[in-house]
Amino acid sequence: MKKRISVIGAGTCGPETEALAERLGFLIAENGFDLVCGGRMGVQRAACRGAKTAGGRTVGILPGLDFAQANEFVDVPVITGLGHMRNFLVVKNGDAAVAVEGGAGTLSEIGLALKSGIPVVALGHWSGIEGVRPAKGADEAMDILKTLVNG
Amino acid sequence: MKKRISVIGAGTCGPETEALAERLGFLIAENGFDLVCGGRMGVQRAACRGAKTAGGRTVGILPGLDFAQANEFVDVPVITGLGHMRNFLVVKNGDAAVAVEGGAGTLSEIGLALKSGIPVVALGHWSGIEGVRPAKGADEAMDILKTLVNG
Amino acid sequence: MKKRISVIGAGTCGPETEALAERLGFLIAENGFDLVCGGRMGVQRAACRGAKTAGGRTVGILPGLDFAQANEFVDVPVITGLGHMRNFLVVKNGDAAVAVEGGAGTLSEIGLALKSGIPVVALGHWSGIEGVRPAKGADEAMDILKTLVNG
Amino acid sequence: MKKRISVIGAGTCGPETEALAERLGFLIAENGFDLVCGGRMGVQRAACRGAKTAGGRTVGILPGLDFAQANEFVDVPVITGLGHMRNFLVVKNGDAAVAVEGGAGTLSEIGLALKSGIPVVALGHWSGIEGVRPAKGADEAMDILKTLVNG
Repeated sequence: MKKRISVIGAGTCGPETEALAERLGFLIAENGFDLVCGGRMGVQRAACRGAKTAGGRTVGILPGLDFAQANEFVDVPVITGLGHMRNFLVVKNGDAAVAVEGGAGTLSEIGLALKSGIPVVALGHWSGIEGVRPAKGADEAMDILKTLVNG
Repeated sequence: MKKRISVIGAGTCGPETEALAERLGFLIAENGFDLVCGGRMGVQRAACRGAKTAGGRTVGILPGLDFAQANEFVDVPVITGLGHMRNFLVVKNGDAAVAVEGGAGTLSEIGLALKSGIPVVALGHWSGIEGVRPAKGADEAMDILKTLVNG
Repeated sequence: MKKRISVIGAGTCGPETEALAERLGFLIAENGFDLVCGGRMGVQRAACRGAKTAGGRTVGILPGLDFAQANEFVDVPVITGLGHMRNFLVVKNGDAAVAVEGGAGTLSEIGLALKSGIPVVALGHWSGIEGVRPAKGADEAMDILKTLVNG
Repeated sequence: MKKRISVIGAGTCGPETEALAERLGFLIAENGFDLVCGGRMGVQRAACRGAKTAGGRTVGILPGLDFAQANEFVDVPVITGLGHMRNFLVVKNGDAAVAVEGGAGTLSEIGLALKSGIPVVALGHWSGIEGVRPAKGADEAMDILKTLVNG
């Protein structure tokens, strides 16, 4: 199977963060990875849109039990009913994770990823957390992700 | 999104049950549905193989955290680490479920499906359970499933 | 730690089933077991009330995230947010399970218990399911449970 | 029901951190709260021991399906089979959480707590995280927790 990158981050965001997430999603697909995310809005939606522009495949692991929670760029929605516990599945279903800004939910995903051996790259807010690899932009993040996943 | 049928049933089975599950998987894909299953062996693998022969798409919701648990006909494996609790996600990610033989695990999936409003068709072992719609073969099961899902 | 018996069954029930569940809860506590259940109404509440009358301890594993879901006879409520998936935790946190009537939710618990090696005694509705030990009343159920748990 | 404080933190720790956690557990029980934790070793075990010394009650929400994972000071072990996802249940079953040192697992618990509205006090390692209330010792932490929980 194709390697996968999980994109995590702010559920609502401004145009700058959105553009960053979209570029990241584009690069993920262009580099031959499937994109995994929480399937919803903000960074998740922007990253999915970018991945679809590059012809990629997107998996959205949703917190609730309603497929309508998924944004329109998710190819394979998976409902879980796990609420915040689904955050673990978002990061664990990838070979690496990349955080774009985000709040406490993103912080929990970073913790769960690091705890279970998934490497994390971060742009913005949480890039100073111990164990996380900081990146300055989408292209640098992609370079680090490729090294992490392909060895 | 495409409607989905969940296939549940025996994790190990003889050639007759396998042929039945494969035919069912083929019909599910041929009729334009995505196939959801537990992603593993026996009925799950045979149904996925049938769906792939008909050019369909297969989602496998795995009990553990290892993608290698998935059979080779799963297009989109999803690891969960939920063990037997993932049975709920297998049935709930479909618009209807169909059981092909099976033991206590399949029984739990039937109960979870009925409890959460997912209609169930059964071939063989559990077809006498209250609330389940019995079918005599793959083609009859498919006819009932189409009526259930498309209304 | 004390051995535990899980009581599963109808979420709403008439006075006869309620009396049966209450007697069963009483016997469980009187025989020195902790009682585990889903923490809510019907058979669960009646069994908890019986256990408290006998001075026992009751654990309620709730489907949602609101402690107010627990009935007033639950000593230790545990919120899960797992919805129907919490059914697995109800049976798996006991050394044996006993079903008193019930519908599809109880059926899922019976399947999950049997699948994961928890023996099941049933009164009423589901007592004919393969693998389940049928009982005629609370006292007979208790006798079987003691043999199952204490060997 | 009694209010509850969740104690999270390092799974293995030196004597100084252990003494801190034990003092905290003692104070939690002495102030009339039940103690919730992950049920295992290090900070969890030390806090449980402290709570038992003060005559309190301890609930341990375990990651696996084996009661033997619980430390000897857990009164009510709950097995979950959820692995790292159980971290959410540890914090969500309390009215407030307090972190004593800890690594990525503790970080995930802090994120999950903050995301779901559970206030967090931290001693040591993660006390600088945005949204967390830092404390200098067990007694100060207890004072903050009382204010948070009792209003």
